[in-house]
Amino acid sequence: MIDLNADLGEGFGRWTLTDDDALLSVVTSANVACSFHAGDPSVMRRVCDLAAERGVRIGAQVSYRDLAGFGRRAMDVPPDELAAETAYQIGALRVFAQAAGAEVAYVKPHGALYNRTVHDAEQAAAVVEGVKLAGGALSVLGLPGSELLAAAEDAGLTAVPEAFADRAYTPAGTLVSRRETNAVVTDEDKVVRRALAFAVDGAVEAVDGTTVVVTARSLCVHGDTPGAARIAARVRAALEAAGIEVGAFA
Amino acid sequence: MIDLNADLGEGFGRWTLTDDDALLSVVTSANVACSFHAGDPSVMRRVCDLAAERGVRIGAQVSYRDLAGFGRRAMDVPPDELAAETAYQIGALRVFAQAAGAEVAYVKPHGALYNRTVHDAEQAAAVVEGVKLAGGALSVLGLPGSELLAAAEDAGLTAVPEAFADRAYTPAGTLVSRRETNAVVTDEDKVVRRALAFAVDGAVEAVDGTTVVVTARSLCVHGDTPGAARIAARVRAALEAAGIEVGAFA
Amino acid sequence: MIDLNADLGEGFGRWTLTDDDALLSVVTSANVACSFHAGDPSVMRRVCDLAAERGVRIGAQVSYRDLAGFGRRAMDVPPDELAAETAYQIGALRVFAQAAGAEVAYVKPHGALYNRTVHDAEQAAAVVEGVKLAGGALSVLGLPGSELLAAAEDAGLTAVPEAFADRAYTPAGTLVSRRETNAVVTDEDKVVRRALAFAVDGAVEAVDGTTVVVTARSLCVHGDTPGAARIAARVRAALEAAGIEVGAFA
Amino acid sequence: MIDLNADLGEGFGRWTLTDDDALLSVVTSANVACSFHAGDPSVMRRVCDLAAERGVRIGAQVSYRDLAGFGRRAMDVPPDELAAETAYQIGALRVFAQAAGAEVAYVKPHGALYNRTVHDAEQAAAVVEGVKLAGGALSVLGLPGSELLAAAEDAGLTAVPEAFADRAYTPAGTLVSRRETNAVVTDEDKVVRRALAFAVDGAVEAVDGTTVVVTARSLCVHGDTPGAARIAARVRAALEAAGIEVGAFA
Repeated sequence: MIDLNADLGEGFGRWTLTDDDALLSVVTSANVACSFHAGDPSVMRRVCDLAAERGVRIGAQVSYRDLAGFGRRAMDVPPDELAAETAYQIGALRVFAQAAGAEVAYVKPHGALYNRTVHDAEQAAAVVEGVKLAGGALSVLGLPGSELLAAAEDAGLTAVPEAFADRAYTPAGTLVSRRETNAVVTDEDKVVRRALAFAVDGAVEAVDGTTVVVTARSLCVHGDTPGAARIAARVRAALEAAGIEVGAFA
Repeated sequence: MIDLNADLGEGFGRWTLTDDDALLSVVTSANVACSFHAGDPSVMRRVCDLAAERGVRIGAQVSYRDLAGFGRRAMDVPPDELAAETAYQIGALRVFAQAAGAEVAYVKPHGALYNRTVHDAEQAAAVVEGVKLAGGALSVLGLPGSELLAAAEDAGLTAVPEAFADRAYTPAGTLVSRRETNAVVTDEDKVVRRALAFAVDGAVEAVDGTTVVVTARSLCVHGDTPGAARIAARVRAALEAAGIEVGAFA
Repeated sequence: MIDLNADLGEGFGRWTLTDDDALLSVVTSANVACSFHAGDPSVMRRVCDLAAERGVRIGAQVSYRDLAGFGRRAMDVPPDELAAETAYQIGALRVFAQAAGAEVAYVKPHGALYNRTVHDAEQAAAVVEGVKLAGGALSVLGLPGSELLAAAEDAGLTAVPEAFADRAYTPAGTLVSRRETNAVVTDEDKVVRRALAFAVDGAVEAVDGTTVVVTARSLCVHGDTPGAARIAARVRAALEAAGIEVGAFA
Repeated sequence: MIDLNADLGEGFGRWTLTDDDALLSVVTSANVACSFHAGDPSVMRRVCDLAAERGVRIGAQVSYRDLAGFGRRAMDVPPDELAAETAYQIGALRVFAQAAGAEVAYVKPHGALYNRTVHDAEQAAAVVEGVKLAGGALSVLGLPGSELLAAAEDAGLTAVPEAFADRAYTPAGTLVSRRETNAVVTDEDKVVRRALAFAVDGAVEAVDGTTVVVTARSLCVHGDTPGAARIAARVRAALEAAGIEVGAFA
């Protein structure tokens, strides 16, 4: 059994980005933007309502406070501030999840905060401190082997490793940087095959042709690319055709 | 028995405004800024921790999204957005109140939103919709006779009328506009006497010399003026000397 | 001879909205967002570069400070602040216009500020004060008969009245409110016919079937609707086919 | 002859920080915040008016876009964005300088951007690109030996090295990090003596007791500490008593 997650609710005011309606018919976990990089309160409410209605699990996609940079610019936020900002975002999302009769079940950092907490133990610990502050025994979604997941486990939280169906991997099992031209897998068939590889084999082909083990309980499909919903649907169909149950992690 | 409330946590990042520490030793209810007009997550956390430690009741001081104008510029926010923005702020504050072992107990609009919801039934209803959305049976603090309190009562919430010890009143029982030169009572002795008048007589002298009935379960003392904490302490001492119990509304 | 203007550069960070490239091949005046309602510095630079390259006149599309509401929520900004905010936006845009070898030639308020300064003489005067503060003998684009254009003329600035090809008009020559269902003309043929009516006859059919005189030196075509660039191109072609020269106002 | 500079205009909306009025009676160069870390348009206008009236030179204190962190959190802003953001801030300030009959004469990065561009050649080059974009042959104020000043010189701009009277120096001539307890010199007499040492000897005592050469054409006095204006006045009086002319760099 594997979970399918996507970043959702990444519009803001007049602007839209993710096809929330279509993706909420496919994924089992919704990483909902909490308004620090995207997602105003009205969007958050709408996505939570729809997710709850369709039984999609709700997670807080926490970010640096950076609308202009869409949370993609790493910031040296002091740990105390980062913990408070993390808890703030979770609390704000929780009000809409609970109003919809659901709960915030997990936390996943966005963009630069996601990348930074792979290696930066201090910021990883600060995010986890924010998650603890927010209470509610939330799970933490992140890269296998990341400082973030290590900090989550140290804090007694459930750490959920995820894999990216459309990202290239190094032989060490880390993501190829987006600065490299081959960082993103754009061929749809290949994306589907790699999703299957993660789910069935627990391994994928790295950029050098070797096979790298990647243990994942969740697969991330991107929501902000053209055709995102269609690719996600194809991934899900392929997984189910292969006899793999698609469902939110426990 | 009467409650004493003040606006707190109105710093932001590098900037400070209210003397939170001193005021939290005097008031019984803290209207905590939720970061739309003031109050970043770190400030919110600190004020909630201190309030919980001292047994001061915590309320969400919700505002228009307007840091540059400190929430003092009325905005034509559509009702749906205003409701979502209100719930968002309550949820964000609740995470810190609960982490401190306390609860958000009430909501009080700030600045231009406070003034607008005295007369604007649509925005008043939107704020109350946001309060309902946030759940938790919150009370609503506002001006006696305001659309806001009427909407709160219609929604089955507890409406708490408040009086301002340092503001001039019209014979109709409304506040003299801040555009008038005599809107604010600056003489400290007079502020104390007026606080007693509200608490003991349920009435105060209006600008024209007549007496106007003002029924209040809470007295607001300002937190952002020089000497705010000292005046608040004098008001509290005078109330207690007059045999009036000072405590948070039920 | 008539000018064709459109709102451009209304993306922000990760978000895009207007098809700047296509529209800059059609219009003669570009109302460039200055980052208060949309338009980050990178977008502003790109649009100015492209406009200068193609000889399109650059104007500052000034707005209330309201990213979350896209400048569509009227705000009670005190005149002094509004004047300073207006000048600030013009100055920020000017740096990119001049770097591209061009100039900011005019100012047009956006959204709620546009609508408010039709009737609100105080805010209209404040915007014009900001324009004067910015220097450079800028023209002001607005609705015929508006307080804004009156204030601009009083201040010795060139007031440029504009008409909207895709908006319904009242018999009094004002725009039908967007709250009415028939406020926007969506039929493309009709938009083109109405543009011709403004340019050739100086009059258009009002919602009640009567003819209303509208004197306009510029026609506004919207940039944020699907097919915006195509409609703009059709309008321009029709005007030129009718022997009307399309060019920026003097 | 030496210049005396201070960060000014660092209030925002309701919040104040620097004692602009008093400091503008002492310093010869005003680093005016441009609203990315502090300084709303009204503050910018007021400070420019006062600076122009008193003949104080105006500089743009450019920053990362980070109000919540007061520009003190380093950000990985891509060079293109950073250049555009720098030019934007200069342009916005220029409108107020020119309206006051003055000019923006130089640029000084603020906080984390200042510290980062000491060592980060890419961001230093991006800031200088923004300065070039803004035109007007602006000078660049920074730390002697910094990448920023090197990039400014490479670009044909005037690089102005500055020294800090109230900061401790390493034997290598760099500032002791604020994370160290002895980073800031708080003894007023010592601040004055060190200012004299920079101006007269071109050298100062480092933390290890050795003497380090620091060539500075400008001295920075802080504006956001209690007693800032008084210390600045003492520094200026001591310089003048020692026969050193205090005036803006050419």
